Amino acid sequence: MNTNFIYHVPTRIYFGDNQIQHLGSELKKYGQRVLLIYGGGTIKRIGLYDKIQAEIKKAGLECYEMPGVAPNPRHTTINRGAEICRKEKIDVLLAVGGGSVIDVAKFISPATFYDGDAWDFFTKKAKMTQFLPVVTIPTISGTGSEMDAYGIAGNLDTEEKIALYHPQLMPKASFLDPTVTYSVNHYQTACTGIDSLAHYLETYFMKPNLFMLESAMEGFMKTILKYLPVALQKPTDYEARSNLMWVSSWALNGFTQGGTRQPYSAHRIADELTAKYGLIHGLALAIVLPRFLSYTLNDKTAPLYKAFACNVLGIDASLPDMDAAKAAIAKLEELFFKTCELPNTLTALGVDDGKLGDMAEAICRGDVLKSYVDLTKDDIVKIYQMCL
Amino acid sequence: MNTNFIYHVPTRIYFGDNQIQHLGSELKKYGQRVLLIYGGGTIKRIGLYDKIQAEIKKAGLECYEMPGVAPNPRHTTINRGAEICRKEKIDVLLAVGGGSVIDVAKFISPATFYDGDAWDFFTKKAKMTQFLPVVTIPTISGTGSEMDAYGIAGNLDTEEKIALYHPQLMPKASFLDPTVTYSVNHYQTACTGIDSLAHYLETYFMKPNLFMLESAMEGFMKTILKYLPVALQKPTDYEARSNLMWVSSWALNGFTQGGTRQPYSAHRIADELTAKYGLIHGLALAIVLPRFLSYTLNDKTAPLYKAFACNVLGIDASLPDMDAAKAAIAKLEELFFKTCELPNTLTALGVDDGKLGDMAEAICRGDVLKSYVDLTKDDIVKIYQMCL
Repeated sequence: MNTNFIYHVPTRIYFGDNQIQHLGSELKKYGQRVLLIYGGGTIKRIGLYDKIQAEIKKAGLECYEMPGVAPNPRHTTINRGAEICRKEKIDVLLAVGGGSVIDVAKFISPATFYDGDAWDFFTKKAKMTQFLPVVTIPTISGTGSEMDAYGIAGNLDTEEKIALYHPQLMPKASFLDPTVTYSVNHYQTACTGIDSLAHYLETYFMKPNLFMLESAMEGFMKTILKYLPVALQKPTDYEARSNLMWVSSWALNGFTQGGTRQPYSAHRIADELTAKYGLIHGLALAIVLPRFLSYTLNDKTAPLYKAFACNVLGIDASLPDMDAAKAAIAKLEELFFKTCELPNTLTALGVDDGKLGDMAEAICRGDVLKSYVDLTKDDIVKIYQMCL
Repeated sequence: MNTNFIYHVPTRIYFGDNQIQHLGSELKKYGQRVLLIYGGGTIKRIGLYDKIQAEIKKAGLECYEMPGVAPNPRHTTINRGAEICRKEKIDVLLAVGGGSVIDVAKFISPATFYDGDAWDFFTKKAKMTQFLPVVTIPTISGTGSEMDAYGIAGNLDTEEKIALYHPQLMPKASFLDPTVTYSVNHYQTACTGIDSLAHYLETYFMKPNLFMLESAMEGFMKTILKYLPVALQKPTDYEARSNLMWVSSWALNGFTQGGTRQPYSAHRIADELTAKYGLIHGLALAIVLPRFLSYTLNDKTAPLYKAFACNVLGIDASLPDMDAAKAAIAKLEELFFKTCELPNTLTALGVDDGKLGDMAEAICRGDVLKSYVDLTKDDIVKIYQMCL
């Protein structure tokens, strides 16, 4: 079938260490009353909070606050934010933080105009119809949430974690300042870099049917592989942080997909670990991804994995497909578990085999997980077992 | 200096052979009265005109027409279009054609709201302040005008050709149907492919200071080098046409530049040939580019040109910089003058040395042409002489 897609990424990006001067005028486009949404104390510690307040004040805007958004956002947090927006007649949401804070803001946006429980959007009981504009300042690279139309939230009562897409979830503007990520620690830098790499890798293996996208993705993945170790070694390297920041924004905004819309299997398998055990997203991915690739390596996938091996990792193109693919997996393991120093098993994180079947069932829901390789519930259990 | 830029490309892209069904709803967003702007009879011959009229009719819109826009658009054409828009109270411009038609529509957009001569925008005598929305259907790949905020027009009286930038010149939406380019002939396919390659090449040599952009551009240039010969051989190859189409859109929209804003020297030198002699843009570039690269090859540029040689053309990385650079230039000449079968001298096109000094002066205007290599008037004359 011929490639067909709609591409539309209207988010305005202010990129660099000298852009926050435009924050006031950007927010002012949407109204007077700003809700500043953030997590813990990081943004105060790095001085970002004060800079934001100064710009908001200079622009003569009214600022309300919603601090304390925790990682792996819950629907109850979204409901709390929507309540504030209705009460304070908020005109625009300013999300400052990681993917969780940004995703919460994205969902508060339609929840403000819905009187019921925001979880209804996730269970398809209700539709998102009206939206508040969202402006973001990501304090960490990786999720791409600052420039895409996705978000993910969880429900602790039902132990579910569900991703949603809607074109109106795309932020109006995002301020990407690489220096803001200087204080991101070794562990988080590793987790988010791997998350970003995994976004490209899963798209790449779906083969979006346009060589130009494949070769662009090869360049984007090479960028992560080049600069992630640099940022781990020297957290204040502008070149490394800026490359990691901008490259992560392009992973999920629709550009590289070129109309391909298959599930991201390794992500889904990792997401269940976050839902059931609260594992940090990038860490769960780091553990799952090499096992997922090993398990799915067969005659059909070997050429795909070899292309990644040769074109991205620089592995010798004269190797047989299988050998090149195995060498690629070994290189990823070296990056994740040696360079990034992440724990390499679920067991090390206190996860045992008790819920593997339940998690696999939650992913498959009586069906198979269809992507460029189809996985049954049994397949997924086996992948989890390899991670123990 | 740290990389800083604003990226904002809100154009909605409908890509593929099954997207024109969305034309009516897209136009309707902006109003009822559409001005259809096009060139000669091509769009009727390939059946596109009828398809467009059917969609416009289905959506219940009123259609006015401005046919006969010639290549290398003139300010008088812009004035004529603005007159129609004012008279017919046009709500939205639909440009169907090549870069010239699209550029004319872009300038009619602000000219509609200006009572004087549109050339005043180009001479900076007047500012563009208000704009009609522009929707485009490119019938040829290469200019990237369907997704950027630039346009170029000429004044035959003053023999000038000037490019203008304004964020509001960005089309609201563009319909990119690779099958529309099936009928683009060998010569035009060659010229536009080379134009697109030159956009990337000139940006690449400026080194936009982000590795991710360099490596993405390498992928984009590889795409052109892979598929241009395919499209020349088999004009109805969807894969080739779709890659060439989408890759050309990304050349000038700001993504690959990453804030770098230097003049495109080879383009400027080629543009004067178009202004003075009416040479087709891509052909002028094909003749100028290899000479420009040879003339500017020195110890400082050799590593730059070698990176292109090795990472894009696959030339042996163990060669000394100078040799690799020369091999790259030779490969470009082979592509332009053998594979693409374009004439390789200005003399073959009837251009003599009579106006070389005038053209160089028009570029330099008493100064030097500053870019990643600075060129004096004398340098430019010498490059022209190499092209004779």
